[in-house]
Amino acid sequence: MPLNNLLVRFAALRKQTEYICAPLNPEDTGLQPSEDVSPPKWHLAHSSWFFEYFILQPYKSSFTPYDPRFFTLFNSYYEGAGQRTIRGNRGDLSRPTLDEILRYRRHITLEVSSLIESNTLSQNALERIELGIQHEQQHQELLLTDIKYILSKNLIDVALFDIGECLPVKKGDNPIVIEEGVYEIGFNGPGFHFDNESPKHKVYLNSFKLSAQLVTNREYLAFIRDGGYTNPHLWHQEGYHWIVEHNITSPMYWRNDNARMYTLNGECDLPLDAPVTHISFYEASAYAQWAGKRLPTEAEREIATPKLNVGERWEWTNSAYLPYPGYKAWEGVVGEYNGKFMVNQMVLRGHAISTAPDHGRKSYRNFFHPHLRWQFNGIRLAYDS
Amino acid sequence: MPLNNLLVRFAALRKQTEYICAPLNPEDTGLQPSEDVSPPKWHLAHSSWFFEYFILQPYKSSFTPYDPRFFTLFNSYYEGAGQRTIRGNRGDLSRPTLDEILRYRRHITLEVSSLIESNTLSQNALERIELGIQHEQQHQELLLTDIKYILSKNLIDVALFDIGECLPVKKGDNPIVIEEGVYEIGFNGPGFHFDNESPKHKVYLNSFKLSAQLVTNREYLAFIRDGGYTNPHLWHQEGYHWIVEHNITSPMYWRNDNARMYTLNGECDLPLDAPVTHISFYEASAYAQWAGKRLPTEAEREIATPKLNVGERWEWTNSAYLPYPGYKAWEGVVGEYNGKFMVNQMVLRGHAISTAPDHGRKSYRNFFHPHLRWQFNGIRLAYDS
Amino acid sequence: MPLNNLLVRFAALRKQTEYICAPLNPEDTGLQPSEDVSPPKWHLAHSSWFFEYFILQPYKSSFTPYDPRFFTLFNSYYEGAGQRTIRGNRGDLSRPTLDEILRYRRHITLEVSSLIESNTLSQNALERIELGIQHEQQHQELLLTDIKYILSKNLIDVALFDIGECLPVKKGDNPIVIEEGVYEIGFNGPGFHFDNESPKHKVYLNSFKLSAQLVTNREYLAFIRDGGYTNPHLWHQEGYHWIVEHNITSPMYWRNDNARMYTLNGECDLPLDAPVTHISFYEASAYAQWAGKRLPTEAEREIATPKLNVGERWEWTNSAYLPYPGYKAWEGVVGEYNGKFMVNQMVLRGHAISTAPDHGRKSYRNFFHPHLRWQFNGIRLAYDS
Amino acid sequence: MPLNNLLVRFAALRKQTEYICAPLNPEDTGLQPSEDVSPPKWHLAHSSWFFEYFILQPYKSSFTPYDPRFFTLFNSYYEGAGQRTIRGNRGDLSRPTLDEILRYRRHITLEVSSLIESNTLSQNALERIELGIQHEQQHQELLLTDIKYILSKNLIDVALFDIGECLPVKKGDNPIVIEEGVYEIGFNGPGFHFDNESPKHKVYLNSFKLSAQLVTNREYLAFIRDGGYTNPHLWHQEGYHWIVEHNITSPMYWRNDNARMYTLNGECDLPLDAPVTHISFYEASAYAQWAGKRLPTEAEREIATPKLNVGERWEWTNSAYLPYPGYKAWEGVVGEYNGKFMVNQMVLRGHAISTAPDHGRKSYRNFFHPHLRWQFNGIRLAYDS
Repeated sequence: MPLNNLLVRFAALRKQTEYICAPLNPEDTGLQPSEDVSPPKWHLAHSSWFFEYFILQPYKSSFTPYDPRFFTLFNSYYEGAGQRTIRGNRGDLSRPTLDEILRYRRHITLEVSSLIESNTLSQNALERIELGIQHEQQHQELLLTDIKYILSKNLIDVALFDIGECLPVKKGDNPIVIEEGVYEIGFNGPGFHFDNESPKHKVYLNSFKLSAQLVTNREYLAFIRDGGYTNPHLWHQEGYHWIVEHNITSPMYWRNDNARMYTLNGECDLPLDAPVTHISFYEASAYAQWAGKRLPTEAEREIATPKLNVGERWEWTNSAYLPYPGYKAWEGVVGEYNGKFMVNQMVLRGHAISTAPDHGRKSYRNFFHPHLRWQFNGIRLAYDS
Repeated sequence: MPLNNLLVRFAALRKQTEYICAPLNPEDTGLQPSEDVSPPKWHLAHSSWFFEYFILQPYKSSFTPYDPRFFTLFNSYYEGAGQRTIRGNRGDLSRPTLDEILRYRRHITLEVSSLIESNTLSQNALERIELGIQHEQQHQELLLTDIKYILSKNLIDVALFDIGECLPVKKGDNPIVIEEGVYEIGFNGPGFHFDNESPKHKVYLNSFKLSAQLVTNREYLAFIRDGGYTNPHLWHQEGYHWIVEHNITSPMYWRNDNARMYTLNGECDLPLDAPVTHISFYEASAYAQWAGKRLPTEAEREIATPKLNVGERWEWTNSAYLPYPGYKAWEGVVGEYNGKFMVNQMVLRGHAISTAPDHGRKSYRNFFHPHLRWQFNGIRLAYDS
Repeated sequence: MPLNNLLVRFAALRKQTEYICAPLNPEDTGLQPSEDVSPPKWHLAHSSWFFEYFILQPYKSSFTPYDPRFFTLFNSYYEGAGQRTIRGNRGDLSRPTLDEILRYRRHITLEVSSLIESNTLSQNALERIELGIQHEQQHQELLLTDIKYILSKNLIDVALFDIGECLPVKKGDNPIVIEEGVYEIGFNGPGFHFDNESPKHKVYLNSFKLSAQLVTNREYLAFIRDGGYTNPHLWHQEGYHWIVEHNITSPMYWRNDNARMYTLNGECDLPLDAPVTHISFYEASAYAQWAGKRLPTEAEREIATPKLNVGERWEWTNSAYLPYPGYKAWEGVVGEYNGKFMVNQMVLRGHAISTAPDHGRKSYRNFFHPHLRWQFNGIRLAYDS
Repeated sequence: MPLNNLLVRFAALRKQTEYICAPLNPEDTGLQPSEDVSPPKWHLAHSSWFFEYFILQPYKSSFTPYDPRFFTLFNSYYEGAGQRTIRGNRGDLSRPTLDEILRYRRHITLEVSSLIESNTLSQNALERIELGIQHEQQHQELLLTDIKYILSKNLIDVALFDIGECLPVKKGDNPIVIEEGVYEIGFNGPGFHFDNESPKHKVYLNSFKLSAQLVTNREYLAFIRDGGYTNPHLWHQEGYHWIVEHNITSPMYWRNDNARMYTLNGECDLPLDAPVTHISFYEASAYAQWAGKRLPTEAEREIATPKLNVGERWEWTNSAYLPYPGYKAWEGVVGEYNGKFMVNQMVLRGHAISTAPDHGRKSYRNFFHPHLRWQFNGIRLAYDS
């Protein structure tokens, strides 16, 4: 990739992150109403810390930290990078303020830009910059989901962005059919990929069919009205305990007895033809059980990708997030990026309206704990031939 | 009291509250790092709500609410005033923003001022305004203690105000001696008082002595160094369990192995001659036990008041917060102000450097749960003759 | 007291404790379904440990422990007596078994009896034996309340004892009137008393009236039917939060929509004329508020004692459990008996059908946390003249 | 299988369960010191309930329940079987007593024996009896692990059984090598199997090597001494948080600074050559990471089975417990046996010294949450060729 291109991409990336936060007031940017959610201010700072820690520090000559305290404040979970703020305490930090963090961002943007322009970077360094870009794209998506969650806690309705949450589901030729056999999955190309997508390897798949379109709110309403949330036989035991304990009877952000829905663009009537969104793995699995079908595995979903319209919602698979055969985490501190999370989480495939453009890939593995709903998660059904 | 005087007092009150918040950034004003602490933004709004709900609504002709949602948002604990935000959720509200709340404040200030100037208010209404002033003075003190707590959670030291936290203890002629006999306590005058201070009534006191000065940090350090925090015999059982469970080994805000102290004016060396502050009732009581003395009762403390220098720190007494004989809560919704808290709390007497001037009284009863430390609480010792 | 008398009392005491446990199966004796409740096996052992630790160890020549591990196992809360089992873990101990504990009891009974018969005991030692007797009487009452609680958790109804839970309330000449003045309360006699009952001291009481009889189930039902449990204005704020959080809508052990009641003698129809029992301080206080009256203070209750039929239910007072003026805890480890609990608890006066005969006294101070209901607690109302 | 044989197996099964409980005192049989552990009394009853509910009720003519309340009391987790006791409340039930439960067992044993002898049972019914036998064998293993856990909570050491916990690890020819290719896994035979073992299906395996023997206590000690429990880089993030939160620094039941070990036969010196046992998946995985190897997948472990000495400890695999391609849960209420647990658990393969003889199979899938340690779990290492 020509450096000029990298410079342009980097600049666009940084601006895009700030653009997402532009309509926020300073008060919006510091709150953490759930441990899973981070304050927008923190995302702005952490994605800058990532460049400072992993690129400027090792690759810039005569590097001095912008503020040594930021190394602790904005380290997310890298044990190898020294001390860090406990995740649940991110919302306790009123300082640095939003303005101070934006100043920090500008500084890091300039420094990294200069480094790129210097035209002296090794291949290794360039790959790290690419990682920093991919990382910040992930935080752009988290910013959208976290801002949505934070603003949803207000009693006062706020409309920020229309990212297409109410658009009807894309139709396709149903069903997609895949024949039995040995297939190859995992990253298989040039270009960037995360360590968890490799090595590519062979898997044996039975024949199966996959729905060409996502489950809609209308279909999910039928499940609810048929008593889906009160029938334990449709659920994993843990899922059923979870909905009982948390009194969950519909997707997150549905309101007024399922007549209304909260979006980043404010509250609206429930869009019946849009893909059902903000459901947990437990709910996705119970819905599939009710429909007499099942969730696909991640290998099935990957093999079928060329035949699918993608990019509406992250799709829960029935695959646990585990290492591929022969998996090796990256060397060094970045090795903590993916590998240490490979237990108790489920894989999601595809991508969503909230995902940064060009961020997804056929082999991309997203992962979350099965009860989490604040991402733009949806359902695609599979069944055996 | 001449109306003009009331108008001036009201204007000064409202300005003072805003003055306390002036050095804060918007990000500082929305956080609630502990359920006991409220966001400064919330204090600014709630103390305005109090005037709107209890004065404008009943006494202003053709009253319309500024924003009906604020009635729910900023009601603290008045069941009789309809719905309210759960206390622990105050920190989830990014909207209304600080600016919007300051606008709300200005509106309420103007409306109440006009009402006062109208010169048409009944005695009842004037008393309610006085209550609103006293109420907001209490929140001025809470603003100081809550701002201190909120900023203390940052890794970045912030200096805002010098309210005299490091000044040495005031000396007095030791000890104060009170003879046995029947005394009268409770509010006994003209002017404002809370319902919990009345009726005045007789109590029988044995003779006792009271220290003329508060316990200092130097004295408290001696208690620590003598193993005070590891000797269960000095403690209430619940207090000892509490310090073990929370790993408490010194007053709140002491740092660096008791060499440094965090204040509203930033971190400083521990001022050895200043009154020990930010200790729980449990710690106050354990210290007294160690010193071979005891905490006074609230009746003892009230009777001795004329002989004391007061106003340094709130003083824990060994009296539970209970109704006086013949106590009647105020009529109506304001009856919830004090009466419903009369269980499981301990009385503090005197007042503190954080208390609004002219807010205290000889008969004033402050009360908190015995484990709470974020107020400016200190220790005065008593003993039997 | 002649020694022979002491020997007889001691023997009767020990038999009575075992008599209470006689109808239990070994399985009943080891469970601890709530931290407040102790396994019957533990009571049998702990009341023996008390004699071993506080009487045999100091006063018996050439004392050797029955089993040194029992010193840790059966120490309740005496920090000065060395290690102990954490209260909440009492139900984890299947060994020693009931048989082994009964053997231990017999050994201690014999040893203490021999010591008494030896006729060599100092006045101090004799007083300690008296304390051991009083202590075991308290555990006899706890055995009844804990057995009741433990068996109530079964789906299978068990009838053990009829202690008169369904007897109608005793009637008296209403109301009892006490005139204003200085009174003396606290222990004032020869004979045994706990340290918390002394010193006797003067109090000033306003005139007041006291109901000659306890509140009945019928009266309490009227409170329930009038919406008592859903009207926050009747409650302490903490009490109301507590009933909401725990979904409490009637006294403990009421069943079948308040038609039935669980007793130590099995389930029966709700006895409408019996005293309401197993209510918390919060409920007692809310009932009094609803009835337009109040709970008495402990001083009021003590002064009125000679005019009352007593001994039906422990009566919640509105007095916090605090030291009397000039209170000194006993010297040594027994000093932990009462003093260290003097915070966050409320005093109950009188005694109950579950109390050992001759255990109560006019000056007796029982105390429990305000939410606790498993004791035989009831309500007597007071009001101002 | 000839009926006579079934009768003998059934009788032996029932006796074996009672034999395991024979050395217990009634007090031992009712406790539940952790929600994962069930009281031995409950196992005795539940394994009888299983025969009553699933065999006698549908297949015995003119069936009447032994005690209808037992249907609720001893239903474990079958939503389709009506009401049940909440798992965490099993330890609250002192009644029925051990004797009453043994009487219930005898009744069920006789009834099922008669049914078998009647020689009228359909193939379906016979398969259900086989399931009842397999089910009770699983509870025999749980009895051993639960009894071990329950007795370990005592301060008093108890020796019950020697099941070979201290025997040295079995040696084998290292390493076992498996070549790349398509393999078939899953149940493939005549005879009993659980639904989760089928259907058999093809998997693609890369070549790999497997250790012929389990990791020993000596080897695990080296991991500990090398700082294994304090090096976050070896752990899953959740595993590391878990050991920090629970202060875990060695396998369960290791005592005295890893010099001693608690067994069902009492405490002994740590047997250095015995397989490390009672470790969580997190610990197994961290050990493998430290050793530069990895845990096998369940498919790898199954394919290698014919080359292994098995039956020492359950072996944690790195496979999540998920349905096989084409998995169908059994029809009806028994369909809840396995399928509803297929999330958030990890598979263990092989079997253990605690497993009933002839209970295991090459295709057998055991599963537990990754933090659980009270089973006889161990470690076998794999690595890539």
